[in-house]
Amino acid sequence: MIMAENHHLRIGVVLFPGFQALDAFGPLDVLNILSWSYNISISLLSSTLDPVSTKPPQKARAAGQSILPTHTFASAPPLDVLLIPGGLGTRSLAAPVEHAISFIRSNYVHLKYLITICTGTSLAARAGILDGKRATTNKMAWAETTVLRPQVEWVPHARWVVDGNIWTSSGVSAGIDVTLAWVEEEFGANVAEEIARGMEYEWCHDPTHDPFAEHWGLWPL
Amino acid sequence: MIMAENHHLRIGVVLFPGFQALDAFGPLDVLNILSWSYNISISLLSSTLDPVSTKPPQKARAAGQSILPTHTFASAPPLDVLLIPGGLGTRSLAAPVEHAISFIRSNYVHLKYLITICTGTSLAARAGILDGKRATTNKMAWAETTVLRPQVEWVPHARWVVDGNIWTSSGVSAGIDVTLAWVEEEFGANVAEEIARGMEYEWCHDPTHDPFAEHWGLWPL
Repeated sequence: MIMAENHHLRIGVVLFPGFQALDAFGPLDVLNILSWSYNISISLLSSTLDPVSTKPPQKARAAGQSILPTHTFASAPPLDVLLIPGGLGTRSLAAPVEHAISFIRSNYVHLKYLITICTGTSLAARAGILDGKRATTNKMAWAETTVLRPQVEWVPHARWVVDGNIWTSSGVSAGIDVTLAWVEEEFGANVAEEIARGMEYEWCHDPTHDPFAEHWGLWPL
Repeated sequence: MIMAENHHLRIGVVLFPGFQALDAFGPLDVLNILSWSYNISISLLSSTLDPVSTKPPQKARAAGQSILPTHTFASAPPLDVLLIPGGLGTRSLAAPVEHAISFIRSNYVHLKYLITICTGTSLAARAGILDGKRATTNKMAWAETTVLRPQVEWVPHARWVVDGNIWTSSGVSAGIDVTLAWVEEEFGANVAEEIARGMEYEWCHDPTHDPFAEHWGLWPL
């Protein structure tokens, strides 16, 4: 469906400690530019309103940047689209990730679209909403991610996968491609192309283009 | 030079209202991953310690995300590398951008490397430190950026340009390529390749590859 310029689209992004910076800010850059011309609000959701660091909990010496959420999961506004970034933080069993999974599980029915990036797919998978659906995720972390929910029909060779209203992408930078593909679907090819050109990004238009699946020995099977 | 694992590298990133999210977080994602294996500190510098929004001052309805600086320009630690993102905020004449330009001007002599992304190059140009040097910038904003400092030897057809210790890149996503190229130079090709694969990013290895210069009529001359 091509969106009218005056339609209000409400987008939420799930944040948790150790989310991967580019997983979130690649898609956000696309959506920020989209908001220059369309009526879009973007909420950043987390367990609390405390700043959320990209620093992985597992990496004591790692650098990280701190982002301010706009809402807690408990105070989240109604949403049309939910984006879930990945990162080493998804592998944590701590409260913020469990809160994120609960939020995804209870809010999915209200969404028009769910978009997951990289190992963010594992949070949707653990919420149970990908059972029986085709989905993809980060290729380097393939084995440890897919084992978390074998009920998902995991697609090992894909830049991104669309099943119904759920768009899942491969690792990190694939989030930019899946978001541009979603913008193309929702706002039209010209809008997506103009954004990509503005970002000077040579985007991958082919969801089956995946040299990283080959690199990590996931394809050919 | 290939860096030893125990060498401490101090990187700073200049923030100002209306910086472009991907200009900063593309390179930061590369450097964050690098910090998992190398001794790297990353400081986020701004006029004050208040959160800095990516929302462009010129776009009243635009979406934006707020990032926490770690230091003010006045309290910045010694730095080896300074990164300057671009964005619509560079076109502001307000105090934070003037502070950024002053900081760049007075600190350049202490740096081992300066890396600019997109219209971030205009801040270094306005600081006067690019005079007589080869540099590039965003191709869509080419005319309005290059006119700010004609003393620079502007290179219209380049993904990125290296002149001495100054690395300047084309628009937005080109920041990922220039940062990976800098990592290759400083840490070796294997390190850069491993980071790019981890990000599932098909990076541009050729600094002269620039379809956007052609799209915007800057090349061939």
